[in-house]
Amino acid sequence: MVLYDISMTITEDMPVYKEDKAKKPVLTVTRDFGSSSAFESRLEMDMHTGTHIDMPLHFIPGGDTSEKWDVDGMFTRCTVIDFTDLDAEVITMKDLEQKMQEIGDDSQVFGRKMTVLLKTKNSMKEAFDPSFTYLDKTGAAYLAEKKIAGVGIDALGIERDQPAHETHKTLLEAGIWIIEGLRLNEVPQGSYILAVLPLKIKGVEAVPARAVLLASASMPLA
Amino acid sequence: MVLYDISMTITEDMPVYKEDKAKKPVLTVTRDFGSSSAFESRLEMDMHTGTHIDMPLHFIPGGDTSEKWDVDGMFTRCTVIDFTDLDAEVITMKDLEQKMQEIGDDSQVFGRKMTVLLKTKNSMKEAFDPSFTYLDKTGAAYLAEKKIAGVGIDALGIERDQPAHETHKTLLEAGIWIIEGLRLNEVPQGSYILAVLPLKIKGVEAVPARAVLLASASMPLA
Repeated sequence: MVLYDISMTITEDMPVYKEDKAKKPVLTVTRDFGSSSAFESRLEMDMHTGTHIDMPLHFIPGGDTSEKWDVDGMFTRCTVIDFTDLDAEVITMKDLEQKMQEIGDDSQVFGRKMTVLLKTKNSMKEAFDPSFTYLDKTGAAYLAEKKIAGVGIDALGIERDQPAHETHKTLLEAGIWIIEGLRLNEVPQGSYILAVLPLKIKGVEAVPARAVLLASASMPLA
Repeated sequence: MVLYDISMTITEDMPVYKEDKAKKPVLTVTRDFGSSSAFESRLEMDMHTGTHIDMPLHFIPGGDTSEKWDVDGMFTRCTVIDFTDLDAEVITMKDLEQKMQEIGDDSQVFGRKMTVLLKTKNSMKEAFDPSFTYLDKTGAAYLAEKKIAGVGIDALGIERDQPAHETHKTLLEAGIWIIEGLRLNEVPQGSYILAVLPLKIKGVEAVPARAVLLASASMPLA
């Protein structure tokens, strides 16, 4: 079984959204061998730091929080679509339509138990890039119409420079969860099983997660 | 596919080891719709709060930390052994030997890519119980000799009342990782696939994780 770890590494100096220092993780040693028989530490981190899943409450007042996230979403069939050849730093409906013409069979990509991961030039960069490639509102509307389970991207945000946040809102209102902070540089375009397991934190608007791709279609899915 | 979520729910009032308040998670809202277009929050938690994996550094000075944890460990064949019928609040070598006589075939339970989960009366209790059932040093020595990948238990600690911490040390020195804080009340004794995905935090002595059991043996494993 080939396994791709597509999660960001969490460290105190990792890239965070807009490099806002308040979003950086803090690791504190609470016991060590100088004064104790054990070593222990504590973590402080923003829910949107590193690889994480956005829940509706992130942009919808009164929206669902993490405990509504269905465990069925942990293991889904998944297509990685390679947009690293795009000149523009935005993925539009037209770009998605064009890729789907190349791929051919819609039914292998879209469906209520399928996830789509957008691989972009972001995966080639380690530092936070304010001009990161994002999914615009037309692209979000296209995916919402296709009724997928989730969409992921290799940026700390799935959109930028859309003051009304239409990409987040369109997807979250359509019941499509959003995975941000993926690392896809090593992963070729194709079909996989996505395992994305968020921490079981109750009542929050986003949850840090570990995400891996399994390059095998023989795992039974619900 | 039947999926059991065997992780603890993370909340501010969840049970923590010895009910030490310093170990309780803290959730802070950093933006909300009163003053912003988005809702965001931040988490502070002890690495040993909730479901987590212990790395060697937890009890071995200079021991390996989280980045040495092999991704192969994320998906393993796994046996849940039911010790809820034990009178004593401890699992010894003798108890393990007796269960293995009942189960019969050692090769279905032990091996370098196999994980053993110990289901005890702890899974029936929600609050922290200072007299939780644990694995003693003779039980740890037995499992170390069997050369398994990992061992998990439904308590926030795998041992108590052993001042030299022999259970942790024996397992960690044998390269056996330890999962603590599991919830196994719903899970019958038997064979599963264990998916345990810790956050990808670098350089720490333990990592919070989401753990699920898949009741199917048809998933390809490395």
